[in-house]
Amino acid sequence: MSRAVAGPEIERLIQLLARLPGLGPRSARRAALHLIKKRETLMAPLAASLGEALGKIVVCRVCGNVDTRDPCTVCTDPHRDPHVLVVVADVADLWALERASAINARYHVLGGVLSPLDGIGPDDLNLGSLLARVRDGHVGEVILALGATVDGQTTAHYITDLLRETAVKVSRLAQGVPVGGELDHLDEGTLSAAIRARTAL
Amino acid sequence: MSRAVAGPEIERLIQLLARLPGLGPRSARRAALHLIKKRETLMAPLAASLGEALGKIVVCRVCGNVDTRDPCTVCTDPHRDPHVLVVVADVADLWALERASAINARYHVLGGVLSPLDGIGPDDLNLGSLLARVRDGHVGEVILALGATVDGQTTAHYITDLLRETAVKVSRLAQGVPVGGELDHLDEGTLSAAIRARTAL
Repeated sequence: MSRAVAGPEIERLIQLLARLPGLGPRSARRAALHLIKKRETLMAPLAASLGEALGKIVVCRVCGNVDTRDPCTVCTDPHRDPHVLVVVADVADLWALERASAINARYHVLGGVLSPLDGIGPDDLNLGSLLARVRDGHVGEVILALGATVDGQTTAHYITDLLRETAVKVSRLAQGVPVGGELDHLDEGTLSAAIRARTAL
Repeated sequence: MSRAVAGPEIERLIQLLARLPGLGPRSARRAALHLIKKRETLMAPLAASLGEALGKIVVCRVCGNVDTRDPCTVCTDPHRDPHVLVVVADVADLWALERASAINARYHVLGGVLSPLDGIGPDDLNLGSLLARVRDGHVGEVILALGATVDGQTTAHYITDLLRETAVKVSRLAQGVPVGGELDHLDEGTLSAAIRARTAL
């Protein structure tokens, strides 16, 4: 903005909001105005909520999830199958699987995937704690819920090798046609994978 | 989410973020995770910025802009033409005109437009203060920068009538082809308006 329309406090708020994923400079300005208009009903609660989360959020020492308790809500949930461990790259993936109610198990968050190009090696991921959890003996199956990307699949291979010394069963997510997906919109790799992994009826 | 993945503090933060314009439930979740990951560099500054803005933001008693001072930065800017008053529906419109550096004048924020269907009548808008500012005698021209919608144009007519008793010159924004706009993407109304208001070369 060439000239100041509002005080520096508002400009600063807009700048910070613009750093949220999904908000650009334009929508950050709109969000700031919305907050300003809803001072009592939105801005004040959001400020309080951020402050509270800031003081309370911790990384779960068992699985790497973020939560306000440690061990986290998932790790301490007695209704989950303790024998199945779902390995994910990121907390966002854990949340996505939970939203889908895909499985009632526990998780292990790697904190990324192996990526030689980005300089991310095994020491940068939570692999030691994964091995320790599996060696513990309570886990019967490890499901590698990693992306169907080169880095994701490299990481899956690495973990499969890493866990070979234990007796644990290792599996990965099925690849195929997404539910609701139309064949002519899918890429060749997905179609080939779906043919290869076809199931008998 | 059917099962709790994270404590209530995080769920509450996601719910509040989802009420920002431009963020849906999915992107609010992503924004919350991003904030959690950038606790020190983004979440803490945002919480502080919101808290500060909350304590300081006021509505300008002269023009209706929002700012941290009253009268606002625009009203107290000595480099602006005090003889021209730009009437806008909303603070967002004031900001948009300022971003464009469209004019170096002062503003008057109505707080909406007349809308019989939504039950918004003259008493719901800042029209009394507009008339008082114009009656003051320092204003030579009022520019009605209202949307080219039915409600915007109804409001423009109403204000033109309201200001008739004063000697002030009243104008409205030009209607025509947007800069960079291609003719075959424009609606009939815009094209007709652009023809009617054609300028001699």
